[in-house]
Amino acid sequence: MNQQTDIRTSVAEQARLAKQAARRWALFTREEKDEALRAIARRLRQDEDQILAANDKDMAAAEAEGRAASYLDRLRLTSGRIAELAESVEALADLPDPVGEVTERWSRPNGLVIQSVRVPLGVIGMVYEARPNVTVDAAAIALKTGNGIVLRGSRSAKQSNLALVACMHAALQSLGLPEQAVQYLHADQHESVDALCTLNGLIDVIIPRGGGQLIQRVVRTSTVPVLETGVGNCHLFIDESARYDMAEPIVLNAKTSRPSVCNAAETLLLHRCWPHGHTVALLKRLADAGVELRACDLTRRNCPELAGILKAANEEDWHAEYLDLTLAVRTVDSLEEALQHIERYGTGHSEAIVTENEQNARQFLAAVDAAAVYHNASTRFTDGGEFGFGAEIGISTQKIHARGPMGLRALTSIKYQILGTGQIR
Amino acid sequence: MNQQTDIRTSVAEQARLAKQAARRWALFTREEKDEALRAIARRLRQDEDQILAANDKDMAAAEAEGRAASYLDRLRLTSGRIAELAESVEALADLPDPVGEVTERWSRPNGLVIQSVRVPLGVIGMVYEARPNVTVDAAAIALKTGNGIVLRGSRSAKQSNLALVACMHAALQSLGLPEQAVQYLHADQHESVDALCTLNGLIDVIIPRGGGQLIQRVVRTSTVPVLETGVGNCHLFIDESARYDMAEPIVLNAKTSRPSVCNAAETLLLHRCWPHGHTVALLKRLADAGVELRACDLTRRNCPELAGILKAANEEDWHAEYLDLTLAVRTVDSLEEALQHIERYGTGHSEAIVTENEQNARQFLAAVDAAAVYHNASTRFTDGGEFGFGAEIGISTQKIHARGPMGLRALTSIKYQILGTGQIR
Repeated sequence: MNQQTDIRTSVAEQARLAKQAARRWALFTREEKDEALRAIARRLRQDEDQILAANDKDMAAAEAEGRAASYLDRLRLTSGRIAELAESVEALADLPDPVGEVTERWSRPNGLVIQSVRVPLGVIGMVYEARPNVTVDAAAIALKTGNGIVLRGSRSAKQSNLALVACMHAALQSLGLPEQAVQYLHADQHESVDALCTLNGLIDVIIPRGGGQLIQRVVRTSTVPVLETGVGNCHLFIDESARYDMAEPIVLNAKTSRPSVCNAAETLLLHRCWPHGHTVALLKRLADAGVELRACDLTRRNCPELAGILKAANEEDWHAEYLDLTLAVRTVDSLEEALQHIERYGTGHSEAIVTENEQNARQFLAAVDAAAVYHNASTRFTDGGEFGFGAEIGISTQKIHARGPMGLRALTSIKYQILGTGQIR
Repeated sequence: MNQQTDIRTSVAEQARLAKQAARRWALFTREEKDEALRAIARRLRQDEDQILAANDKDMAAAEAEGRAASYLDRLRLTSGRIAELAESVEALADLPDPVGEVTERWSRPNGLVIQSVRVPLGVIGMVYEARPNVTVDAAAIALKTGNGIVLRGSRSAKQSNLALVACMHAALQSLGLPEQAVQYLHADQHESVDALCTLNGLIDVIIPRGGGQLIQRVVRTSTVPVLETGVGNCHLFIDESARYDMAEPIVLNAKTSRPSVCNAAETLLLHRCWPHGHTVALLKRLADAGVELRACDLTRRNCPELAGILKAANEEDWHAEYLDLTLAVRTVDSLEEALQHIERYGTGHSEAIVTENEQNARQFLAAVDAAAVYHNASTRFTDGGEFGFGAEIGISTQKIHARGPMGLRALTSIKYQILGTGQIR
């Protein structure tokens, strides 16, 4: 209990420092903020040796713990990765500043002029897992939008994260800017996440980035509003009229180009009347590309020639976000049945229809309740960069505040400024 | 424990029905939705006798419990109030439909066309206290925006609320529309609020409307995102250069026109250099209007002639949302000191400066972190109707999703529709 109180006090104190500094960042001009980002980028390149030395310690500890290769890869920093990180911070400086934008302005009959102005959210609480580059990405996006940020990274990346934060602090200090806007939590116990998520009044929004368990823990415990980035159980529906030469590249791209990401496809829905030859060719092509296929009974009955490559799907397969070279396959009787399947099993991330029938496309785009709905394109485009946002904080699968890829604007709110000449009500 | 499980099952079942029906409402045209609203308005007038009879039962029970006059007044329905309710539903039908609006549309170099389309949120969970008119207001706003709604009113208004819901259901049934989109919780134990607030996947957003205790309970227990409508500790800052003939009506209006509402002023900050005669005249005028004044030491020392009307303020007064004819008064040395006071004690609702100094006005409007910041106008304008929104669900004091008066748009989200010609990544 005493320790928990200590953790809470320590986390609150850092949040308070971030809030104080954020008040000043909120009023900086675009030029001041961009100069800060460029200084951070320069300093990252300059401090490369210290950052890599710190990362070596994290890597050695993770290797000693016998972590998987994919984990080690996410944790690793290299000279090339630091250079990319610096470039992405510079790219951020080149983006327009959403803060200060007057989004609406109108007059009332009584002469009041009301305008809605974009302002920073305040202080962001960022809870994330292994990848140390998030430390810089998130802090740079927060500063670009005039926000403070309290970072809570994983213990396994602590040395790397602290080195990156020290480097950012040094860059801001060199310009005389309040570096306290970027806080890295000293307390790294599990309880520090709970403390951060309940600091209403000091933290304005929590963004969890990582696996489903982390996100669910944050959603359950947080009393501060959460921007939930979530699971993608994405579907591709190949309609009766889909062209084979369009369907095949879309399905292969959506499943195999990067199976570990949330916008990769997990279930293929095939219209029963799509030509049998197309179905067989497509499934063979997937199997040749190394994809394990888990198909419904109907698909397996319809394609006896594929008995060797079609495993039986069960209920769990329709729910699964494999994040791997596995694909669930189901034959449906109609667009309506496809819509029902997506409604039941989809996670509201990205859903696609491949069809030459414009009316079916329109119906699909209207009826499917997801952040991104596609006609004749791969679900892999659900991404801030691919949308042209320049920067991405994550992909929201909730409906309030921001949905789909979140760019800089997702880190802003608005305030109403009302200009009067003595009006009373 | 068994009872809790029963409550949860019952609440979840109603939320599921609302979600099913909401899927259909999401696709209705503006004409279909507005016809539904007009039918509800007609039916409200037609069923007046039944509604009043039900309200009589609630009133009799509340009187027997010895409820205060203000409580009874909020609970009471009259023929006139039902007529107003019907009119407000018709006014809603006349407002433009935000759903379906394409808010942005752009092309990518690869030929993808991306558009952001406004869609309903899904199902709203509404937790509210005594006033039965909220039952109709909230349901009508939800239907207008293609949402479902699960209503959880207070037990004391149950008969009135059920009569109003029956009336709305009958109107929708007469048009063959899915009336299940409007659900009134059968379970009215305290636990039903907790159940509603944790139905992630069935409920998309919770809106609590009522006292601070209710709102805090919802914020603490909800795992569903909450649109927080909150406390208004609103300040008026009378700057050195403020005109007396502007300051007096603004202060009187903000404090006395309707002290029980959240946009009423609670603290008056007076610049030390505002002419002494103005200060004395203004405070006298307030006292004459029946306002109890609780002033800081400096104000009391500066105005010995007001010894009879200035009580001593303590720390609690700076925090208080009186919602009554009481006003805290503090003399400050500078705009900066006023800003610090507002930052420390303000609740981010509505804050005003009265000044002839444009630079001070700009600094105040930029620096104060609140939903609505005013120059030379009363804080009482923070209201959906006064902003010209036509309808209001509440006034958000949080920064995500919606801030300030929430109109129809606050009940919408967006989805991205991506139109391709076979693009892959």
